[in-house]
Amino acid sequence: MIRIALDAMGGDNAPRVEIEGAVQALRELPPTFRIQLVGRTADIEAALKSHGEVDRARLDLVEAPEVVGMGEKPLAAIKSKPRSSIGIGLGLQKKGQSDAFISAGNTGAVMAAATLLLRVHEGVARAAIGTPFPTAGQPVLVIDGGANVDCDARELVGFAHLGSVYARDVMGRATPGVGLLNVGEEDEKGNAVVKEAHQLLKQTPGIRYVGNVEGRDILAGRGKGGEIDVVVCDGFVGNAILKFYESAGRMFAGMLQQALPDVLGRPEVKRLFKFLDYSEYGGAPLLGVKGVAIICHGASPARAIMHAVRVAAQMVESHLDQDIGAEFAEGGTVR
Amino acid sequence: MIRIALDAMGGDNAPRVEIEGAVQALRELPPTFRIQLVGRTADIEAALKSHGEVDRARLDLVEAPEVVGMGEKPLAAIKSKPRSSIGIGLGLQKKGQSDAFISAGNTGAVMAAATLLLRVHEGVARAAIGTPFPTAGQPVLVIDGGANVDCDARELVGFAHLGSVYARDVMGRATPGVGLLNVGEEDEKGNAVVKEAHQLLKQTPGIRYVGNVEGRDILAGRGKGGEIDVVVCDGFVGNAILKFYESAGRMFAGMLQQALPDVLGRPEVKRLFKFLDYSEYGGAPLLGVKGVAIICHGASPARAIMHAVRVAAQMVESHLDQDIGAEFAEGGTVR
Repeated sequence: MIRIALDAMGGDNAPRVEIEGAVQALRELPPTFRIQLVGRTADIEAALKSHGEVDRARLDLVEAPEVVGMGEKPLAAIKSKPRSSIGIGLGLQKKGQSDAFISAGNTGAVMAAATLLLRVHEGVARAAIGTPFPTAGQPVLVIDGGANVDCDARELVGFAHLGSVYARDVMGRATPGVGLLNVGEEDEKGNAVVKEAHQLLKQTPGIRYVGNVEGRDILAGRGKGGEIDVVVCDGFVGNAILKFYESAGRMFAGMLQQALPDVLGRPEVKRLFKFLDYSEYGGAPLLGVKGVAIICHGASPARAIMHAVRVAAQMVESHLDQDIGAEFAEGGTVR
Repeated sequence: MIRIALDAMGGDNAPRVEIEGAVQALRELPPTFRIQLVGRTADIEAALKSHGEVDRARLDLVEAPEVVGMGEKPLAAIKSKPRSSIGIGLGLQKKGQSDAFISAGNTGAVMAAATLLLRVHEGVARAAIGTPFPTAGQPVLVIDGGANVDCDARELVGFAHLGSVYARDVMGRATPGVGLLNVGEEDEKGNAVVKEAHQLLKQTPGIRYVGNVEGRDILAGRGKGGEIDVVVCDGFVGNAILKFYESAGRMFAGMLQQALPDVLGRPEVKRLFKFLDYSEYGGAPLLGVKGVAIICHGASPARAIMHAVRVAAQMVESHLDQDIGAEFAEGGTVR
């Protein structure tokens, strides 16, 4: 039985939405997992009351009296609040009492705590956030989504490995194509770091590198060099594009609502709105740490929390953690 | 009378589309300008034949026997083909025989030629591409859109000046708000260059700096610090987001078409499609050079060329060039 710790105190509407997501997950997903709700247990119990019948046999409550606020400085918060839901939740995994951790709380604090408590696999220079971008076809994983704002070429190669393993294990791509985000597809394009990474990636065994890709290739799922499952970039660019995409979806949804008020009830339009609502998606894995950690949007609704539980279970079932360890032991770092 | 040189040989469908755009501009825009069609005059004459009545009194043909291909290396092409439509077109402006240059050809070649032939204003470290992003409200200018893939903090401050003058002169914003693209709004966010630029911008006179903004703030037209007319970033990030936006529009349009085939004929839906079609927009100014140069998308349809003519005329009429010179003479560089 997979044990998934859920930060009940993270997110803009915690613990209500987190509890609702947990309850939905227990009801709707295959029963391969149990959930550990981490936070102020009195608050959690109170929130659970409104939910009628819940499978309490698959639900554990873990007391964590402290809460890290969304605006707190990550490292300082983690150090000064060791009994926060983030600290306790990740601590369970470190002690072997849990298999995964999910939080919609302070992203920086989750990253800092995961790196400090779980540590990164040998050979991993930096943990990175993998962000699955919804497209008209299959999702494309953009890595890094914001964990590292300054990257050197070797770190980008590391992201290519992390993304490849995730795409294989969780996204079901047997031999994932990896593109490097650049301003053009030619060898000489880009800044110094990206040019070096391009040359390194061309000669990295174990990576199916399709070459430089441009901003427009992400949603197309293909660059000049072929189909892409993973797009590698530093966390500054990745974060900017991720947030831009989210806002573009919101803007298009608003325009659609104004232009076509009479068709909004149609199921195909509802599906379109769902696609455009980034908060529907199930969180982003922090890849490279020893263990499983998923970071959700602060505004995640219950369905997004449920999706994150599903993805966490997949990450554990597919042995992603061990596979990442093996990938880097086999030469995941550029030597 | 404003003289606008148009590269008749640039673009994916040259000279047909360029000629069509010129003809539309002469017919539909106020008659404050004349157009200089630069390229192989025999080809231009042939293309003009299909257009019935054209105001030839406001149309000059300028012979340029060479053509720079879309795939050619910019600097080498410019040096080996001095009589290309790009070289001749910008040369007219240098000689005082033209006021503006528009091309949908090889972007790198136009940038290189403009910088070499027109040179940059004193105090301008680097010319930059200003890209107006369409939003649900007013457009927001993202600068740099791809001219400079590696920037230092002082160059980013220079872009803030260039963008501010453009927003004042051409976009009609009296005191434009400038945001710095970052991964969060707090002072300590970002990579080393952006952190330094943030501190410099806070103390730069003449810039209404509203602070760090995130990827989601561009289309919203406002960050935590207030409304934004200009977003400053390096050309790597700007180019990635610009191309991403273009593809997102295309993807949404495709999904809309599939989901709602029966409403596509409605005028409000047509307007929405037009909004989503980035090729409709009128090109991006290269800011900082002494003169006026506009770079259009290679796939620009005739309407985009016409819009570019309108913008070029506005740039000349508003004395943008002189205003940029004055801005930098008054302390546009960080001293």
